[in-house]
Amino acid sequence: MSQKEIPYKIYLEEQEMPKQWYNVRADMTNKPAPLLNPATWQPMTAQELGKVFCDELVKQELDDQNPYIDIPVEIRNFYKMYRPSPLVRAYCLEKKLQTPAKIYYKFEGNNTSGSHKLNSAIAQAYYAKKQGLAGVTTETGAGQWGTALSMACAYFELDCKVYMVKVSYEQKPFRREVMRTYGASVTPSPSETTAVGRKILEEHPGTTGSLGCAISEAVEAATSTEGYRYVLGSVLNQVLLHQSVIGLETKAALDKYEIVPDIVIGCAGGGSNLGGLISPFMGEKLRGERDYKFIAVEPASCPSLTRGRYVYDFCDTGRVCPLAKMYTLGSGFIPSANHAGGLRYHGMSSTLSQLYADGLMEARSVEQTAVFEAAQQFAKVEGILPAPESAHAIRVAIDEAIKCKETGEEKTIVFGLTGTGYFDMKAYERFNNKEMVDYIPTDADLEAGFAGLPQK
Amino acid sequence: MSQKEIPYKIYLEEQEMPKQWYNVRADMTNKPAPLLNPATWQPMTAQELGKVFCDELVKQELDDQNPYIDIPVEIRNFYKMYRPSPLVRAYCLEKKLQTPAKIYYKFEGNNTSGSHKLNSAIAQAYYAKKQGLAGVTTETGAGQWGTALSMACAYFELDCKVYMVKVSYEQKPFRREVMRTYGASVTPSPSETTAVGRKILEEHPGTTGSLGCAISEAVEAATSTEGYRYVLGSVLNQVLLHQSVIGLETKAALDKYEIVPDIVIGCAGGGSNLGGLISPFMGEKLRGERDYKFIAVEPASCPSLTRGRYVYDFCDTGRVCPLAKMYTLGSGFIPSANHAGGLRYHGMSSTLSQLYADGLMEARSVEQTAVFEAAQQFAKVEGILPAPESAHAIRVAIDEAIKCKETGEEKTIVFGLTGTGYFDMKAYERFNNKEMVDYIPTDADLEAGFAGLPQK
Repeated sequence: MSQKEIPYKIYLEEQEMPKQWYNVRADMTNKPAPLLNPATWQPMTAQELGKVFCDELVKQELDDQNPYIDIPVEIRNFYKMYRPSPLVRAYCLEKKLQTPAKIYYKFEGNNTSGSHKLNSAIAQAYYAKKQGLAGVTTETGAGQWGTALSMACAYFELDCKVYMVKVSYEQKPFRREVMRTYGASVTPSPSETTAVGRKILEEHPGTTGSLGCAISEAVEAATSTEGYRYVLGSVLNQVLLHQSVIGLETKAALDKYEIVPDIVIGCAGGGSNLGGLISPFMGEKLRGERDYKFIAVEPASCPSLTRGRYVYDFCDTGRVCPLAKMYTLGSGFIPSANHAGGLRYHGMSSTLSQLYADGLMEARSVEQTAVFEAAQQFAKVEGILPAPESAHAIRVAIDEAIKCKETGEEKTIVFGLTGTGYFDMKAYERFNNKEMVDYIPTDADLEAGFAGLPQK
Repeated sequence: MSQKEIPYKIYLEEQEMPKQWYNVRADMTNKPAPLLNPATWQPMTAQELGKVFCDELVKQELDDQNPYIDIPVEIRNFYKMYRPSPLVRAYCLEKKLQTPAKIYYKFEGNNTSGSHKLNSAIAQAYYAKKQGLAGVTTETGAGQWGTALSMACAYFELDCKVYMVKVSYEQKPFRREVMRTYGASVTPSPSETTAVGRKILEEHPGTTGSLGCAISEAVEAATSTEGYRYVLGSVLNQVLLHQSVIGLETKAALDKYEIVPDIVIGCAGGGSNLGGLISPFMGEKLRGERDYKFIAVEPASCPSLTRGRYVYDFCDTGRVCPLAKMYTLGSGFIPSANHAGGLRYHGMSSTLSQLYADGLMEARSVEQTAVFEAAQQFAKVEGILPAPESAHAIRVAIDEAIKCKETGEEKTIVFGLTGTGYFDMKAYERFNNKEMVDYIPTDADLEAGFAGLPQK
């Protein structure tokens, strides 16, 4: 451990920012399983994927060999507008907890989209623009990804069509307006604009939509419109690649002060933040250079890693997407309506699933009341009002710091603070009013989800 | 001009952060006029002011002699959690405008309160705690100040009672919940909890409240409760003093790269941000060391500097506060209901008013549609979604940069980006839907406001 005084916030200099992304798959002995064509159960070819995704992104999606991939200068210039993000020493939280642990968090919320999603959105928009496309389509639930993508598309003057889960469209008008301010068109999903949307509306006239359904619509809109491709903000290998900028900056900042973390913690929905944060540390572990403890934190109400099955499953409800091998609760699984903490995706990144299956990473599930308690405690002492998603990581970081207090161990804990909670005040309101309840799916609930898994 | 390459964001090191605030009054030949007791029209004494404000803050309020005042280490430690704020070179905006001007903005929105208000909130909470008080009271309109103060009070474990203008309380539930998450109690104003509130409710049963009325209630609540004092987020000399941290950091960052601005621009409601930003530059101008052009930007719908009178007026509607000499529209003036851009206060800081009266500063008024156009243009290229207040400064910065394009002048423009617009999406929605209209008060409207000015 260095004798240098650690500032509250460690900022890298602009010239210290990563110039390459790190591709953790290159260092994995057991590679993540490939995407399969659901009709043939054969690996998706680049040509097949190219109908849905930009060519350069297809290359990145399939590349499990090259450890480093150059970040184009146009993307690096955009990164410079809101990155490097600070690595913060949580001095005030440590003091409050009276723990000997040293706690750091990488804060990704200091941009208008409010989360780390922008790291991949700008990359995907760039490659779409470079390919000469007219626009991209996507889905969004709570709206973090849609917001990030609309910012990225505004920057590159690219059209952006967002399918927003209807219930969010109606209940989160502010997110919608941020996207519209950036020039995106936002359609509540399911909608009459796609065949899959019309089919769902016919079968379930009163439905308020789901993420899986919005994905199906966005994919159809992209593949049926000349000059458009579909983009996705999580789960995919390419997304983890772009998000490695989080981990690379974190590691560079720690290295500057000769700090070595014992535990690295991240919340996990589809895996974009966790995968990005742990990548370079995981690389060291895979190469046998250093050991770390990694903890993925997921909501007890959507426990894909801790209670899911590691099998091939659909990525969307409409079943128009390829199959991915992942820890999954079944593509029909929908968390209880009272779940307010985000991280609602039924599956988990194939890369993270493989690492978890290989015992290289732990997972923990937490209940939402405890998550919001941690969020409030953190906000009061560290100032930042966290997104509910991020607060999952805070919960476990606090738990680990309290363990250190009990054992006297001076562990160094790093966690990812993915974003801010400005657009989640409805959930905070329920918490403030003590109306929030916890929900853990029963085994029968899970069995119902597993029953929808695809059969070869 | 330096040959060093200017990064997108200039961050000071932690040890380069200011250790003293700068008190511009010390360098003014014509001091700002003192606060007067409305009953006697005699200057308020420290003893009188001490019934409303903390003792240390009264000292700061009355001190027009000492140019530098130490920032206590406890406040500096809190500043370290969210400061230094970045000084950003607006490369992308310059490119978009094709201007030879060099544009910089000091971004104060990277904290949960979303604005610069936290700079003074933490100072005021600290002095209240140091004095052994149980809590503080305040008013809030849109909620930036209330949010900042509730964060500051949570940090020092001080009770915080916020009177929130009723219409905002109902229409901005998210701001309210942020305050509650930080442990503040939030009361819609006018309320039954104070005599002045009950009186207003009796006279105007359907009223949705006003800032001036909420101030009256907060002052009454403070002065009638043992162990409480009132705090205010703008207008006062002490607030400008605390906010000088903005200008000091800006100047230090510019000095690092040997950059000298030609024009410094800030939005102006009560003057907290503008006063803080320009203070150290104004000091140089007052001491004859260097000349700068300063532009205060205010909404055309609430034009205190450009169309107000420089006279003694009440600071609040209930007329329980001292009289201040300032550019004012009259304490009864309320901007049109369609005005969405913030900066609604009827008067202007006495310090800034004096500087303006002495010709040391210019003022410009802008209409809200043009302000939101600037906001959107800025958001699309610079990524940050600005608060409507901040967008007033953006509007004039863009106007000045366009002038440079026409004349070919390579002027250096610095403006204050006071905060983010996450809680202002209702206003953006109106803009996006092209439902926003402009409003300029008629001379008759202004005369009605002036008619309520106090007579000696």
